[in-house]
Amino acid sequence: MTFEFKIIKNDLRSRARTGLIKTSHGNIQTPYFVPVATSATVRALDSQDLEDLGAQCTLANTYHLHLRPGDKLIQRMGGVRGFMDFDKPIFTDSGGFQAFSLGYGREHNINKLGNIFPEGKKTKEAEEKFAFVDDDGVKFVSIYDGIKHFMSPKDSMEIQSNLGADIIMAFDECTSPLHDYDYTKKALERTHRWAKQSLEYKDPKQALYGIIQGGWFKDLRLLSAEFINSLSFEGIAIGGSLGKSKKDMHKILDWVIPLLDKRPRHLLGIGDIDDIFECVERGIDTFDCVQPTRIARRASLYIRPESGGCPKNKFRINIKAAANKEDQNPIDQNCDCPTCRRYSRAYLRHLYIVNELTYFRIASIHNMHYMLRLMSDIRKSIMNNTFSELKKKWLD
Amino acid sequence: MTFEFKIIKNDLRSRARTGLIKTSHGNIQTPYFVPVATSATVRALDSQDLEDLGAQCTLANTYHLHLRPGDKLIQRMGGVRGFMDFDKPIFTDSGGFQAFSLGYGREHNINKLGNIFPEGKKTKEAEEKFAFVDDDGVKFVSIYDGIKHFMSPKDSMEIQSNLGADIIMAFDECTSPLHDYDYTKKALERTHRWAKQSLEYKDPKQALYGIIQGGWFKDLRLLSAEFINSLSFEGIAIGGSLGKSKKDMHKILDWVIPLLDKRPRHLLGIGDIDDIFECVERGIDTFDCVQPTRIARRASLYIRPESGGCPKNKFRINIKAAANKEDQNPIDQNCDCPTCRRYSRAYLRHLYIVNELTYFRIASIHNMHYMLRLMSDIRKSIMNNTFSELKKKWLD
Repeated sequence: MTFEFKIIKNDLRSRARTGLIKTSHGNIQTPYFVPVATSATVRALDSQDLEDLGAQCTLANTYHLHLRPGDKLIQRMGGVRGFMDFDKPIFTDSGGFQAFSLGYGREHNINKLGNIFPEGKKTKEAEEKFAFVDDDGVKFVSIYDGIKHFMSPKDSMEIQSNLGADIIMAFDECTSPLHDYDYTKKALERTHRWAKQSLEYKDPKQALYGIIQGGWFKDLRLLSAEFINSLSFEGIAIGGSLGKSKKDMHKILDWVIPLLDKRPRHLLGIGDIDDIFECVERGIDTFDCVQPTRIARRASLYIRPESGGCPKNKFRINIKAAANKEDQNPIDQNCDCPTCRRYSRAYLRHLYIVNELTYFRIASIHNMHYMLRLMSDIRKSIMNNTFSELKKKWLD
Repeated sequence: MTFEFKIIKNDLRSRARTGLIKTSHGNIQTPYFVPVATSATVRALDSQDLEDLGAQCTLANTYHLHLRPGDKLIQRMGGVRGFMDFDKPIFTDSGGFQAFSLGYGREHNINKLGNIFPEGKKTKEAEEKFAFVDDDGVKFVSIYDGIKHFMSPKDSMEIQSNLGADIIMAFDECTSPLHDYDYTKKALERTHRWAKQSLEYKDPKQALYGIIQGGWFKDLRLLSAEFINSLSFEGIAIGGSLGKSKKDMHKILDWVIPLLDKRPRHLLGIGDIDDIFECVERGIDTFDCVQPTRIARRASLYIRPESGGCPKNKFRINIKAAANKEDQNPIDQNCDCPTCRRYSRAYLRHLYIVNELTYFRIASIHNMHYMLRLMSDIRKSIMNNTFSELKKKWLD
């Protein structure tokens, strides 16, 4: 196994840093936003699109691929890399997050940041639990066919070995901001036992990241950071519920990052533009999130600050707005993505309104290009000692 | 207006011919299959994809674009060409076919070839008429919002002028194989009056094709061929119900084609592989049909004869078949499209099964590439005097 992480430059005024993760299948310049290929495809994009966008790597989902088409099938097809023909570093998550989102999260109708969905949006389905945690692992009911599955740390390592990623994640239990101290502590102890089991059972050809949990309780997060940092993981991920607000999330990072050594640090599932800046500043190296493609499919397209993007509008326009009806400008005049070079807002709005498949891809290309360019700008700014100016330009 | 048609070579043993249509926005080598961009996009593909596939031209739908986003808006956006940024010859149809498919066709639950859908598939919706024909034109009820519209030959010409295609179609009434002789004759007289009105009102910058109708009645088809051929259209299209079987369709072409002079001949809405051969042989120059992308979305992917494609399997495989589950081969080993160069049947099947948007594009690219390559093979065969051998190789 090749796995190395080299810090190239530390920011002078914050914990931000730029570095290089080396794997057998290529390098990742950090900080980086890893595009999520849930079912071995970044939704609406193919591997050629990812290459054309200059994507350095991708992250596939263990839970989804284990169920469909099956990790053993993927192994026979050359792993995720061979299956989707994407010859760059590949991450997989552990399936632990699904234990949360399909279990407690679904039951309590909450998302990762603890936002409880409005009552009106509550569906019957949202109240049914599809995952049950005990000390040995997680019992899943497949969301596809209702068949019961069980996943232990050992199972997760085996599945991730079959999927053949370069960078894999320890099996963990993700808790919610609604969980009390006692449950969160119990879950953390379980996660720590599972961390050691993950190390024990992992495929030696893969780099394993341990996952820090502990909810929004300071002593648990500190305990977890110290414990995970003490084990021989190749990298450290921060997961789980990150409090009830963005401020809580920042606090959690401020607690745990100082306890970590220089291994690469991955923040699981976060992807708002302001969060990227706040978390890079606090020392995060890599992110993964479905957000760029998910919001694109729902008509939200990113614009840069020089085109009017700001925290208030979340750096987004709504392409279906009537104002775009006859707008011959691109989504963002300061964007050089293939979509902005070629198509008008009017055309994109039309494709969205008439529900044309073409929309989903060209909108996703724009948003993904935007995120990857942002990460490139951030890396350059750290090299040039201008990260705080860049952050200010974007967030103030 | 530039519009010229030059026959380059006539087949020695049939009415097949290869030629060149010249327009102000580029040339079309014939015989050619025109990809259909219903709503100013070939479903799932963008204009860059069309260019990469070497598409020589495209055909957009007057009815759909008139309703959404509106032909006047499209005119302000630079016409269909500017709107979708596709700088090649563009066709539009006249909206006449929708008078049929949304009117009588919907009411009687029949498609263009007169296939009556099985009773089981009959839906309530299928019995509601959305279009009503009288001597002045067609009253449409928009399928999108229920608002009533009216389209006369003059309206159709105005709308098509706004859409700004190079090649436009006369407004016609398409009849069904279920219509009796008397109705078909009455409709034909209307279509002929509308043909003259279309010529009168057409934009002089556009090339107008007249449309031969007459159902499956020989005397009406002959009458229509003579009449349409006698008018100063730039090209001749053959439309309407083409009988109750493929044999009827061939018979209709055998009746009308000998009555036509050397202007380009377009066959509306036909696209089965065997039909392409049979109709080229009978003297058709261009085709348009949504079939390659529509069947791709429904899991049917084309294979060439050397890969097992034949009339019996309609030159198709079903990608969702269990046999493809672990098949590392491309869709067609003898295909050089971007999809076959990169992805396995197993991967495509997986994407189809999990309903990933990526599937629709890469499957559509394959089927469209297949059709365009077939047309190129046909053109070469006519040049080399081997058309009948090629037809035999494919159809026997």
